[in-house]
Amino acid sequence: MKKSDSLFVAVAGAGTVGGEVLRLLHQNADLIAARCGRRAEVCAVGVRNAEKARAQFPEYADLVVQGWEKAAKHPKAEIVLELMGGETEARACIQTALADGKAVVTANKALLAADGGAVFAAANAAKKPVAFEAAVAGCIPIVKILRESLAADKITEITGIINGTCNYITSAMDRGMAFCDALADAQKLGYAEADPSLDIDGDDAAHKIALISRLAFNARPAIGSFPVEGVRGFNLADIKYAAQFNFSIKLLANAHYDGRRVSLSVRPTLVSKKHPISAVDNSMNAVLVKSVFSGETMYYGAGAGGAPTAVAVVGDLIDIARKNCALFMPSDSAPPPITPAAKLRAPYFMRLRVLDRPGVLAKITGILAAENISIEAMHQNEAAPGCKVDIIILLHETARGYLDAAVHKIEQSDAVFGAAAVFPIRRFGRQ
Amino acid sequence: MKKSDSLFVAVAGAGTVGGEVLRLLHQNADLIAARCGRRAEVCAVGVRNAEKARAQFPEYADLVVQGWEKAAKHPKAEIVLELMGGETEARACIQTALADGKAVVTANKALLAADGGAVFAAANAAKKPVAFEAAVAGCIPIVKILRESLAADKITEITGIINGTCNYITSAMDRGMAFCDALADAQKLGYAEADPSLDIDGDDAAHKIALISRLAFNARPAIGSFPVEGVRGFNLADIKYAAQFNFSIKLLANAHYDGRRVSLSVRPTLVSKKHPISAVDNSMNAVLVKSVFSGETMYYGAGAGGAPTAVAVVGDLIDIARKNCALFMPSDSAPPPITPAAKLRAPYFMRLRVLDRPGVLAKITGILAAENISIEAMHQNEAAPGCKVDIIILLHETARGYLDAAVHKIEQSDAVFGAAAVFPIRRFGRQ
Repeated sequence: MKKSDSLFVAVAGAGTVGGEVLRLLHQNADLIAARCGRRAEVCAVGVRNAEKARAQFPEYADLVVQGWEKAAKHPKAEIVLELMGGETEARACIQTALADGKAVVTANKALLAADGGAVFAAANAAKKPVAFEAAVAGCIPIVKILRESLAADKITEITGIINGTCNYITSAMDRGMAFCDALADAQKLGYAEADPSLDIDGDDAAHKIALISRLAFNARPAIGSFPVEGVRGFNLADIKYAAQFNFSIKLLANAHYDGRRVSLSVRPTLVSKKHPISAVDNSMNAVLVKSVFSGETMYYGAGAGGAPTAVAVVGDLIDIARKNCALFMPSDSAPPPITPAAKLRAPYFMRLRVLDRPGVLAKITGILAAENISIEAMHQNEAAPGCKVDIIILLHETARGYLDAAVHKIEQSDAVFGAAAVFPIRRFGRQ
Repeated sequence: MKKSDSLFVAVAGAGTVGGEVLRLLHQNADLIAARCGRRAEVCAVGVRNAEKARAQFPEYADLVVQGWEKAAKHPKAEIVLELMGGETEARACIQTALADGKAVVTANKALLAADGGAVFAAANAAKKPVAFEAAVAGCIPIVKILRESLAADKITEITGIINGTCNYITSAMDRGMAFCDALADAQKLGYAEADPSLDIDGDDAAHKIALISRLAFNARPAIGSFPVEGVRGFNLADIKYAAQFNFSIKLLANAHYDGRRVSLSVRPTLVSKKHPISAVDNSMNAVLVKSVFSGETMYYGAGAGGAPTAVAVVGDLIDIARKNCALFMPSDSAPPPITPAAKLRAPYFMRLRVLDRPGVLAKITGILAAENISIEAMHQNEAAPGCKVDIIILLHETARGYLDAAVHKIEQSDAVFGAAAVFPIRRFGRQ
C-alpha cells in the first residue's frame, strides 16, 4: 500500500476512550487497513496536557499537539475523532472540523443529548457525516441497528439497562449487599465516580434514552420533561419481596411510541426473572427493542469502558472510510409530543409498612378502589397482632397520576409507617 | 417523488418469507421510501404457482409471473430478492440476476453454506452486492455486526442458540415436558417441520455456524468436518441434574478461533442459569460474540419466521439503495484449518447409571485418572445398596478424544447400565 493511500485521522482527547482508540488503531492496524481499504494513520493527537500524553503514548509522541484546535484543523486529516467529553470545547471541536471539511466521529453523549440539533445541523450544512455509535451504550451497536438493521420496521418501544454503575449496584444488592456497600464497591472498581450522582440519580440514563428516542421516534425530549428516578435509597427488602414474585429489580430507561405520543421514563422497574434482561448483571448493559415485524430483539454488551467504546469509535471510522455512513437524517416532520408524567401507565409493585390491626387492609384497598386502581395480588408475611408488618400489593395497570394520589392518601393513614415503595412492573414477550 | 425516482425490485418466491416481504414493502412503503431516498416498487413477483400467488396477494396480482427467470431478468429491476429457498434454482436465480447487472438480496442459508464460494465469486465478478443478513438468525443482524460494528476488533469466539425448533424443545423440557410431547407441540405451533430431522439433529444449526465462521474467521468448514449433535434422545433427568448445579441445557453452536485453528461444534451444552443466554427460551435465538476489545456481546431475537426475516431482507434492500452495502470481502489468505473433533477441549457433565455397590466409584474414577481427566465435582443421590442410581460427575477441561476413550471403558463395566450422557459445559464472563 502506498503512503499516499493512507486515511489520515486526527484524535482530540486521549483519556479513557481516546487512549484505547490509539491502542486499538496501533494493535489492529492491519485488520483495520484491510477493512478500510487503506491504512488508518494518526496524524495528530490533540490533548490538554501534551507532556503527559507523550509519556503515556510513546508510539504517538511525535504526533501529540497541545489543545484540540490543531487536531480539528490538521491539514492532512480526513476524519477527526472527538473523544474529549465535556460540552463547550467538544462542540467547538466538532464544528471546527466540519467547517474544515472533515468527517467527525464522536463518543460524546452529553453534548448530543443537550445540543444534538446544532451538531447535526452543522453536519448537514457541511455535508459531512458525524458518526456517534460510541455515544450510546458503548460497544452495543444500537445506533446502527435502529438506523440500518431495523430501518424497514416501525419501532414501538425501547427499554434499556444503560447505566453500568446502577446495574452494578442493583446486581450486588440482588446478591444481598447493602446499597452503600455496593456503591463503595462500584467506586473501588472504577464503575462509579467519586461523585456518583450523575449515574445513581438516573441522569446519565436519561441523557441516553433521550438520544435513543430521537433516533427511533424523532422525539426531542428535554431533560426534565419526563420522570427520572435513580437507585439511591433502594431497599434490600424490596429486592427480596420482588424475588418472591419471581421478579428482579433493574434501573430501566424506557421510551415508548404509540403512534401519537412518546412516553419516556427512567425508573427502578421489576422484570421477570424468566426474561434474559433480568440476568444482565454487574456493569453490563442491554437494549431491548420492540418493533412491529421483528417483535422483540435485544442487544447486550459492555455499555462503557475505554476498550469496548473504542471498538464503536473505530467501527464508525471504518464505515466512513467505506462511505458506509449515511448523514444523520433529520425528519422534516414535527417531533411527537411527550406524554406528561402523570399519564404514564404501568402495572405497579407497592410495599407498605403497616400496623397489623383490623381494618388497615380495608382502608388501603378502599383508597385504591376510589382511584380506580385494581389489585392483581397481595402478600403479607405473618406478624404478631399489633406489630408492624410489610404488605406487598401488585397493582394492575394504572396511570401514575392516580397512583400518586392514592399513595399520598395511603401515607396519611396513621396505620402506615414511612413512605410507600412503588415500582413499575415491565413484562416482556410471554412473561 | 417522481415515478422515475422509483427503486424497482423483483421478488423471486412468495412463501413464508417472500409473502411477509411483500406485506412489509406495502405496509411500510412511506417509511421505506424515506430511508431508501426513493420509493421501493415491486416490478415482478416470480413464483412457481402464479394462480395461487395472485389469489394470495391481490395487491400484487398484476405483477405475478410464472417462474423465477422473469423476475431475475426483469428489465426494470435494480435489485432481485431471492426468497425461494432450495439450492439449484436459487443459485441459478442469483447468478442470472448478477449477470444481468442487478444487486441481489438472499435469505438462503442452505445455498450459502453449501456453495457460498460460487455465489460470492459471481458477485465479485459482476461487481454487484449479494446481501444475506436474512440467511443467518432471522432478524438478528449478526452479519452486519461482524462486518461493520465489530470490524475493528478481533473476534475470538461465536456461540449461538440458532435453531428455534431445538430451543423450543429444550425450553419445554426445562418446564418438565417429555421430548416427544415437546416435539409434537413444536410441530403443532409450526416451529418444526413434519420431518423435523434437519432441525432436531443439529444440521440446520451446523449450516448456520459454518456460514458465521466464514464471516468471522474466513473459515470454510465442510459440513461433516466438525461434530454435530442434536436434541434427539435428550433426557429429562439430565435437565433436572443440570439444574441442581445451576445450569440449563441448550443446543449451542460454537466456533472458536485461537489464532491458528478454528474449532466448531453443535452440541447440547450446559450454561449457567446466571447468564442471560440461559433465559433465551422458546423459539427465540441469540448469538454471543467474544472479541478482544469489546469483550462479550450478545444479540437476541426471533431467529426465524416470515415477518422478522422480512425486516432483515428489506434492511439489506435499504442498505443497497443507500449504497451502504459493501461487497463481500473474500480474504486472499488461506482459510484456517479446522480442529479435529477429538482435540476439542471443554469441561464436561457426565451422568452414569450404576449399581450402588462398593468399588464402583473407584473403578470409574480410576478410568478417568488413567486418561488424565480430573474431577471437579461429583453428586450421587441416595439409593438402597445394590440398587441402580445416577451419578453426576463434573469434569475439568479435557480433550474430547480422551473423554470418549474413558467413556468407552466406563460403559464396558458391568456395574454401569446403558450409555453415559455427556455434555460440554460452557462458562461465560464471570460465571
